[in-house]
Amino acid sequence: MPAGFADTPPPPYYAVIFTSQRNGEDDAGYAAMAAAMVKLAAGQPGALGIESTRGANGLGITVAYFTDEASIRAWKANVEHLAAQKLGKQRWYAHYHLRVAKVEREYSGPDGR
Amino acid sequence: MPAGFADTPPPPYYAVIFTSQRNGEDDAGYAAMAAAMVKLAAGQPGALGIESTRGANGLGITVAYFTDEASIRAWKANVEHLAAQKLGKQRWYAHYHLRVAKVEREYSGPDGR
Repeated sequence: MPAGFADTPPPPYYAVIFTSQRNGEDDAGYAAMAAAMVKLAAGQPGALGIESTRGANGLGITVAYFTDEASIRAWKANVEHLAAQKLGKQRWYAHYHLRVAKVEREYSGPDGR
Repeated sequence: MPAGFADTPPPPYYAVIFTSQRNGEDDAGYAAMAAAMVKLAAGQPGALGIESTRGANGLGITVAYFTDEASIRAWKANVEHLAAQKLGKQRWYAHYHLRVAKVEREYSGPDGR
């Protein structure tokens, strides 16, 4: 699987789509926390992978994949993650929108990998 | 709704999560087509909005929201979109992964907008 892509199993599984707008403040603090959270998320029960990117305008989309809803709720309640969520609201995000969705089908390309 | 965020209705609705890695070639041609496709997608039956970003490393995530699966299949089969898909495979993408998912719940912040 190429770098940046989540190597997920055949559906069904769940996706947490997190769209966020950075406020342009504290880039270093944000980057450190984001890296720590990606690493922590990867080790959670039910975690299947993560895809994340952010443009020069500060708009970012992160999609984290999990086996089931219970795993998503457990990750949201993780103590270190709760601290990060609080800082995100206070310091780093101008706006965010989170959606939980059940992946039903998928395909890849151009070569079907 | 802040710029870059899709103003979607209460769930359920569908998300098409398109993760892609640009190959670094033909930036101008790609940018023109991407802009045309975002505009065209917005006018499709069942289209609810789109969120899209790409980082400096060429990894991009676009999430297009639709009312239902039939609308997604109709958009995939749109003649102009089919031509764009073909060019994407031939010229612009090193890799891509597309997932269709049903959004079940959501929230936003920091202020609940």
